[in-house]
Amino acid sequence: MTGTTKLKVGILGASGYTGAELVRLLVRHPGVEIALLTADRHAGKPIGDVFPHLARLTLPDMVSIDDADWSKLDFVFCALPHATTQKVIASLPDSLKVCDLSADFRLRDTATYAQWYGGEHQAPELQKLAVYGLTEFYRDDIAGARLVANPGCYTTTSELPLMPLLEAGLISHEGIIIDAKSGVSGAGRAEKQGSLHTEVSEGIHAYAVGTHRHAPEIEQELGVAAGKPVTVTFTPHLMPMNRGILATIYVSLAAGANVDDLRVALAARYDREPFVHVLPAGRSPATRDVRGSNHCLIGVFPDRAPGRAIIVSVLDNLVKGASGQAIQNMNAMCGLPEVMGLEQEALFP
Amino acid sequence: MTGTTKLKVGILGASGYTGAELVRLLVRHPGVEIALLTADRHAGKPIGDVFPHLARLTLPDMVSIDDADWSKLDFVFCALPHATTQKVIASLPDSLKVCDLSADFRLRDTATYAQWYGGEHQAPELQKLAVYGLTEFYRDDIAGARLVANPGCYTTTSELPLMPLLEAGLISHEGIIIDAKSGVSGAGRAEKQGSLHTEVSEGIHAYAVGTHRHAPEIEQELGVAAGKPVTVTFTPHLMPMNRGILATIYVSLAAGANVDDLRVALAARYDREPFVHVLPAGRSPATRDVRGSNHCLIGVFPDRAPGRAIIVSVLDNLVKGASGQAIQNMNAMCGLPEVMGLEQEALFP
Amino acid sequence: MTGTTKLKVGILGASGYTGAELVRLLVRHPGVEIALLTADRHAGKPIGDVFPHLARLTLPDMVSIDDADWSKLDFVFCALPHATTQKVIASLPDSLKVCDLSADFRLRDTATYAQWYGGEHQAPELQKLAVYGLTEFYRDDIAGARLVANPGCYTTTSELPLMPLLEAGLISHEGIIIDAKSGVSGAGRAEKQGSLHTEVSEGIHAYAVGTHRHAPEIEQELGVAAGKPVTVTFTPHLMPMNRGILATIYVSLAAGANVDDLRVALAARYDREPFVHVLPAGRSPATRDVRGSNHCLIGVFPDRAPGRAIIVSVLDNLVKGASGQAIQNMNAMCGLPEVMGLEQEALFP
Amino acid sequence: MTGTTKLKVGILGASGYTGAELVRLLVRHPGVEIALLTADRHAGKPIGDVFPHLARLTLPDMVSIDDADWSKLDFVFCALPHATTQKVIASLPDSLKVCDLSADFRLRDTATYAQWYGGEHQAPELQKLAVYGLTEFYRDDIAGARLVANPGCYTTTSELPLMPLLEAGLISHEGIIIDAKSGVSGAGRAEKQGSLHTEVSEGIHAYAVGTHRHAPEIEQELGVAAGKPVTVTFTPHLMPMNRGILATIYVSLAAGANVDDLRVALAARYDREPFVHVLPAGRSPATRDVRGSNHCLIGVFPDRAPGRAIIVSVLDNLVKGASGQAIQNMNAMCGLPEVMGLEQEALFP
Repeated sequence: MTGTTKLKVGILGASGYTGAELVRLLVRHPGVEIALLTADRHAGKPIGDVFPHLARLTLPDMVSIDDADWSKLDFVFCALPHATTQKVIASLPDSLKVCDLSADFRLRDTATYAQWYGGEHQAPELQKLAVYGLTEFYRDDIAGARLVANPGCYTTTSELPLMPLLEAGLISHEGIIIDAKSGVSGAGRAEKQGSLHTEVSEGIHAYAVGTHRHAPEIEQELGVAAGKPVTVTFTPHLMPMNRGILATIYVSLAAGANVDDLRVALAARYDREPFVHVLPAGRSPATRDVRGSNHCLIGVFPDRAPGRAIIVSVLDNLVKGASGQAIQNMNAMCGLPEVMGLEQEALFP
Repeated sequence: MTGTTKLKVGILGASGYTGAELVRLLVRHPGVEIALLTADRHAGKPIGDVFPHLARLTLPDMVSIDDADWSKLDFVFCALPHATTQKVIASLPDSLKVCDLSADFRLRDTATYAQWYGGEHQAPELQKLAVYGLTEFYRDDIAGARLVANPGCYTTTSELPLMPLLEAGLISHEGIIIDAKSGVSGAGRAEKQGSLHTEVSEGIHAYAVGTHRHAPEIEQELGVAAGKPVTVTFTPHLMPMNRGILATIYVSLAAGANVDDLRVALAARYDREPFVHVLPAGRSPATRDVRGSNHCLIGVFPDRAPGRAIIVSVLDNLVKGASGQAIQNMNAMCGLPEVMGLEQEALFP
Repeated sequence: MTGTTKLKVGILGASGYTGAELVRLLVRHPGVEIALLTADRHAGKPIGDVFPHLARLTLPDMVSIDDADWSKLDFVFCALPHATTQKVIASLPDSLKVCDLSADFRLRDTATYAQWYGGEHQAPELQKLAVYGLTEFYRDDIAGARLVANPGCYTTTSELPLMPLLEAGLISHEGIIIDAKSGVSGAGRAEKQGSLHTEVSEGIHAYAVGTHRHAPEIEQELGVAAGKPVTVTFTPHLMPMNRGILATIYVSLAAGANVDDLRVALAARYDREPFVHVLPAGRSPATRDVRGSNHCLIGVFPDRAPGRAIIVSVLDNLVKGASGQAIQNMNAMCGLPEVMGLEQEALFP
Repeated sequence: MTGTTKLKVGILGASGYTGAELVRLLVRHPGVEIALLTADRHAGKPIGDVFPHLARLTLPDMVSIDDADWSKLDFVFCALPHATTQKVIASLPDSLKVCDLSADFRLRDTATYAQWYGGEHQAPELQKLAVYGLTEFYRDDIAGARLVANPGCYTTTSELPLMPLLEAGLISHEGIIIDAKSGVSGAGRAEKQGSLHTEVSEGIHAYAVGTHRHAPEIEQELGVAAGKPVTVTFTPHLMPMNRGILATIYVSLAAGANVDDLRVALAARYDREPFVHVLPAGRSPATRDVRGSNHCLIGVFPDRAPGRAIIVSVLDNLVKGASGQAIQNMNAMCGLPEVMGLEQEALFP
């Protein structure tokens, strides 16, 4: 970006929650102009028809992907469903930079992809070029990437606290247990019985116990951090709230390490990061303290069981867990300050 | 404000929800620096101790009002409980401009104040100087005021749709019925049994039926608009949500007027207002579409009963219903653009 | 029913919320045995597959309506969607008594039915025989009926407080305004975007303003009570809660009547009714106080506007507003004590 | 109890949620008459003044404990705050049977009590006589007891799935991790900022990480089951819902055991229990499926980590986690069928 020229960005899949969240954030981003919105089922409509809270904005009407004019764009966010994205991105002009919010390019190993997502990868060459978009760990690669695979929401919540500790050898790479709790927006806007207010509010349950697709993604990155394969226990739960993820993580301390060492190491690692914050001893992070913001909060606690620690981390699944981190990656890819457009405070209560 | 000098503002009563909301908005306001926070019970603490979502901000510690140094300030927001505010504001240096979020200076008639708030007004001279802070109607007076009385949340939601219609003579000033529904944050952060999650969630009820203190405030302003005394029927209800007010208003059309006339007149009246928006026919406004924003949405509907109309208006009680409107007034009082610091989009879902 | 023989009942449409609520209540009803459950899409499954909270009960598997064996049954509850019910009931053996929870037989005038429900009535002869199932007003007719049309949820909430006042001539039949608020279960279990947790929680809105189908049903019954045609203003709102309806009703007092007269008359009218209760002056009814029970609570308040009153009534839309009232009608139709199986207290919190 | 004589019971602490829940259940219990309600702060009032959902019941007015007439009673439920209960129970006539819902008599070791509850036990002789009221494990002792200490809510949720597995030697007694999530009613009706709707809804957090008082209670009973001391990792979380507890429990399989063994063993152990149910493989229990009922549901899942399993258990903290289990214990203590008065189905949605 030179001078006052704004990046022309497109959002593919604008009628979903991550699409709407990209719009909410990007319309106040000083370096960006939204030049394309796609939504196949709603082609021809203004975005206010599907998201009334965005009705007052002056934005292009939604079009189908087939009718998109790529020539005007500098950057594309791809917020399409898993498995539909590979072909779309493969068909984009090479000149376009892309941040993909789906799971399609997150797993470096295409065999692992095929195993967990039920089919052969449709764009394995692109997969090789994709950079994993956990900004705090890959920002140098992201800066030079054409295609960034934005991490999953559970994944980001788990990796941010665990990767520095594995890198530093302060915890065991074995026996890591991640008990994760997510708000309903993580299930998207699809019309599913399990997402109805009547089926979600005033109750909780675990789902996909031992079988959730974010587990191999978490293991991929923890394996990089640990320098060896990692198997995690991962249990997601559905919470009667819209936004927010909280991961309660149970770890074994490495020989010689204590709980304060963990907190000190995390605090040092994230000391200059604008969006990751380690709380003082005794403070427990709450999802409501990051609602609507791009922040991740981490608390570290001693376990009653000797030699163990409990780590709690929270973020907003639609922001740092999706659209906010995608914008952070766009900033990094396009030479903009990483925090640009992401400085809103949390909305509480 | 000249050049790059920022307004030095103080927030009295920073440990309540409207105080926290002022902080959330003002820290991103380009023309303001928060120079004072008071909270008597929490003097000496950082605001992060009472509002963890604000813990990352660099702000002065809270002090007691008695320890406040007024000499450094240009502007004060007073977010103290009703009835405690009069003496505090009377004691402030004359050089300070003040926006008061309590009810203490809203009622021009001190006898009405005494009747509804249970005691003689303690600062009747100040009351005479106070300008009622419904920005869209009093911005010229606000621009020259030293003390602005920020309207109540129910009041703003009711007055914005009704005042233009009364001024234009399109509806009868008799028989106006306001059925209003508010989120729980309107009750503040006080530790009341009636505000517990267990007592509020999964249920609704009306309260203060026929006796709520916002009724005389609404009548005061509607009377100004109508040019004669107005008595309204006003029923507030408590909703199991945190933010938002919705008023469903039942009116009689003036002779010769129809429902479209009402919508057209309101749309024309608010055409150039940045924060008040009249929806197209058939669209029903929802509080979730203004959550966290300073916007008010208004829908106008035909009633099945002939000669009548139904108007629905929504806003966020903590923003346009309190802190956002207070900042809008501060902007007007200090010569800043009215929208400055108030341009965030709504947070949905 | 003679001796210890239990009524054999069938529930058509067991996979919806009113069907599940019938099961919940009927399995503890001492005079009833559930002998048939139908759910076309789920034929062959146990009810626990669609409602895990009922999984522990010993009940017949669900079948399609076409496979139902009517010969074993004494009574049928029809909890099918509006407009699908007429043909089904017309095809049942004459010996079967039926309580229909849909809207299909509520409107005595088939022209009104056609106007509001979009088509000719398919069983006009049956319509003539149907008795309107507002038990407190029609129990003598219900006792002799073969087919009872169970009232709508909004309707019951509105009719119970208004009909005695119109009958007694204590309020005007003109200008009645019903501002109604319903929980989400009223929308059923259909997979609609507007019923998702993300779209319902933390916000409110009005819908079908001036056009809701319960208005003509309310007017039909209020007209009977008043002895002349009645037009009501009726505005439904969607509340972020699962169960409960609250109607705030604005009325004009008849000449010579005062607010206490209304309360006294209602209290006298319902003095011996087990499920309708008039609160003492000053008490405001809450939906949470009737959650899960068959009770309706009514409060009567003076309006600030002279000559007017405000009435608030609440019930659980799935119980007194649907399945509970249907069982109350079954009891009346079959000579059982009306309260049988309906004596649970409300669940709070 | 002989013939048709009903047990005369008293409820000490009737103005709290567990007191109200005892009333809700006991008024429909065919073997019981509520003869005494105490609430010191509300002495002289009917219970409907503090719990409007109970206002229609014919019950004695609340009195202060000092004014209670014990001579008429057969049984007392003590629902008083922790630490206040010891002296009260010590002062009761020996002829009265007592079920105490507080924590005061749960810990057999008075030194452990003193450590966790901050003071010397005031009735150590009574402590020796108290029987721990996990009905499914101690019903023989309970049948002969004068004083039963009703277990905690988190405790019951954790012990029911774990004790049979430890007794059978199917899991390791080391490294047990209990990640527990509770609704807000577990915090009682006290007017605490942390229980306000605004502070609880739309967000989650962990609290008392590593320091919650239910941990030693769990360890006491797991130690009995394992035949050796057990240390557990226990993390409670506050959920934005009123009722329900879910415990996600991570265990190591004993040598030679597999996940199906665990499920089979639990199913066999609870096969004839009316209130504890083991779900088929692949089914995940939800708190909403037990809301308002005395049931506990347990699911058993393989962990991705070899040699490990994940167990999920749910119950309603106010019923099986408090008042329902207390009534189950009363039934056992007084020779009544254990399920009497506890057969309501869950309320969903």
